[in-house]
Amino acid sequence: MPFTFLQHMADTRSEIAQLGEFGLINKIKHNVSLRNASSLVGIGDDAAVIDAGNDCVLLSTDILLEGIHFDLSYMPLQHLGYKAVAVNVSDIAAMNGTPEQITIGLGLSNRFSVEAVELLYEGIRAACENYNVDLVGGDTTASSSGLVLAISVIGRAKRERISYRNGAKVNDIICVTGDLGGAYMGLQVLVREKKVFIDNPAAQPDLENHEYVVGRQLKPEARMDIIHELADLNIVPTSMIDISDGLASEVLHLSKASNVGIKLFEDKIPIDNNTFDTALEFKLDPIVIAMNGGEDYELLFTINQLDFEKVKNHPDIHFIGHTHENSTQNILISKAGTIVPIQAQGWKHF
Amino acid sequence: MPFTFLQHMADTRSEIAQLGEFGLINKIKHNVSLRNASSLVGIGDDAAVIDAGNDCVLLSTDILLEGIHFDLSYMPLQHLGYKAVAVNVSDIAAMNGTPEQITIGLGLSNRFSVEAVELLYEGIRAACENYNVDLVGGDTTASSSGLVLAISVIGRAKRERISYRNGAKVNDIICVTGDLGGAYMGLQVLVREKKVFIDNPAAQPDLENHEYVVGRQLKPEARMDIIHELADLNIVPTSMIDISDGLASEVLHLSKASNVGIKLFEDKIPIDNNTFDTALEFKLDPIVIAMNGGEDYELLFTINQLDFEKVKNHPDIHFIGHTHENSTQNILISKAGTIVPIQAQGWKHF
Repeated sequence: MPFTFLQHMADTRSEIAQLGEFGLINKIKHNVSLRNASSLVGIGDDAAVIDAGNDCVLLSTDILLEGIHFDLSYMPLQHLGYKAVAVNVSDIAAMNGTPEQITIGLGLSNRFSVEAVELLYEGIRAACENYNVDLVGGDTTASSSGLVLAISVIGRAKRERISYRNGAKVNDIICVTGDLGGAYMGLQVLVREKKVFIDNPAAQPDLENHEYVVGRQLKPEARMDIIHELADLNIVPTSMIDISDGLASEVLHLSKASNVGIKLFEDKIPIDNNTFDTALEFKLDPIVIAMNGGEDYELLFTINQLDFEKVKNHPDIHFIGHTHENSTQNILISKAGTIVPIQAQGWKHF
Repeated sequence: MPFTFLQHMADTRSEIAQLGEFGLINKIKHNVSLRNASSLVGIGDDAAVIDAGNDCVLLSTDILLEGIHFDLSYMPLQHLGYKAVAVNVSDIAAMNGTPEQITIGLGLSNRFSVEAVELLYEGIRAACENYNVDLVGGDTTASSSGLVLAISVIGRAKRERISYRNGAKVNDIICVTGDLGGAYMGLQVLVREKKVFIDNPAAQPDLENHEYVVGRQLKPEARMDIIHELADLNIVPTSMIDISDGLASEVLHLSKASNVGIKLFEDKIPIDNNTFDTALEFKLDPIVIAMNGGEDYELLFTINQLDFEKVKNHPDIHFIGHTHENSTQNILISKAGTIVPIQAQGWKHF
């Protein structure tokens, strides 16, 4: 075949936006087979699972791109570094594992100074310290456009303690940690204040009464505390996922992977007062925000009813519903008692 | 501290270009300590080394950015996918390990169609098949600028068979696989033909007599064949690195890490005829290209003299010099017998 320029321009063209991120992942996954005996679980969960003798090694990768995942006008570089590590640690938490090593791939345009890179690494180091993770490698390169961060994290778990997305059984209790929707409302506040700042650079951002939600957006924490507590209580969640795209999207993942139906109760969904008030201020329905706002990085998991006694008084684990037999019936029971089908409106970046 | 916009803009500003990639990595490395017992080796070699029972797990990450590492006008997407995997596999080869799993982080702007992504994955899959690597995960996202590829690879090696950069001893034999400078000359040909194409889009690129060097640029191979052969011969290189930035840059890494001097002989440096002729056509000195051209992904390693008998007739391993005591004296003996200090002119992307 003669070499021609631009030979990758195919004759037909289908838009990725039509297929969506999950459609694209399914297409990729479809053609992939596993050859190595050490590859226990591949694409499709929060992390890959790799045989490592007595333990399993967990591996997860995220890329964070300027202009898509963060805006440096309101995301301080230390916080960005911290968050980049935290969201990856959260993927290991979601497997019921413990993070141990991390690599950082960094693409930098020439508007970044050495000092800026040091601020970024200050945040990365703070997160590594907090989560007891070692920065063991990476790649640093120029970027012709914005800041590019690619993080891979290695975690570890005993094989029998790993929680997959596909392990939920009928009549399991659905649990969620912390509270939901805060990170999304924090983003709305920051976007609003940025507009004010652009119109008048002398204006101070007005974040009064919004510290909580802004903090949820700028400095999320991976819930490793919960993972350690579950281990202490000798509970292995029957299924688990972290909430990065929104509760609705994540429960549907669990439903599909585990082949069970999901029934949630609106009055059980945890929403912080500050999130609630901020949503109303923005004329948004707090429950819609809690169901669909992403980036909270809380854990969603299911437990066997027999484990309920052990956690029923936990101050930061909320019991929001239960699984049932019909995997096509994923519903939210509203406070008024009406049945609302759960639909993923999660964060679409394509 | 009150929140302000753009608070990451530090008061002082030092340019990354002044510090250079390796200076920046040293700065990052300086502040990093390892906490987990499983983190055997962190930043500073081709891959991190992690304890995994009987074996060690090797972990390496690369990011490839459009406009910095590749130009899609002459890099077909299948080849890009193949190369992205191969260069990561090469990092595992450079540790004397075997690659097993890979994750792909992908940032796509809306000019990429589903068909384009499929072409990219065609190349990724072909490389996975060739190197017996499993694609086990990744992340797919929109990108506001060009194509972003972040690859992490996991490999495996017996602890006592790992080759580090710092293991070369005095009077070891310096070996290099394949031939050097081809990938660089291939890039020069492609850049020249792209200019012709821009001036006249109807012109067919003239790659006649340059297939070899263009192939070296567009479809490099990781030298896993050599790794398997060394294992069969029961040779563990005393030190090893892959040639991504150019021979001169890599021998200086080995010299510094191992604290030995390097002595190379110009007449032993392997240069393919096609690379030689193309260099002359571009009025470039072939030996300068072989010493400094990057992206060949051949292996540079040192062996104990006692192992020489086992490999001396290998058709694709070249014995280009030896180590000596004085680590500050890194020299090339020219064909005329003159002594030339080795200086890294490797690929600077900052």
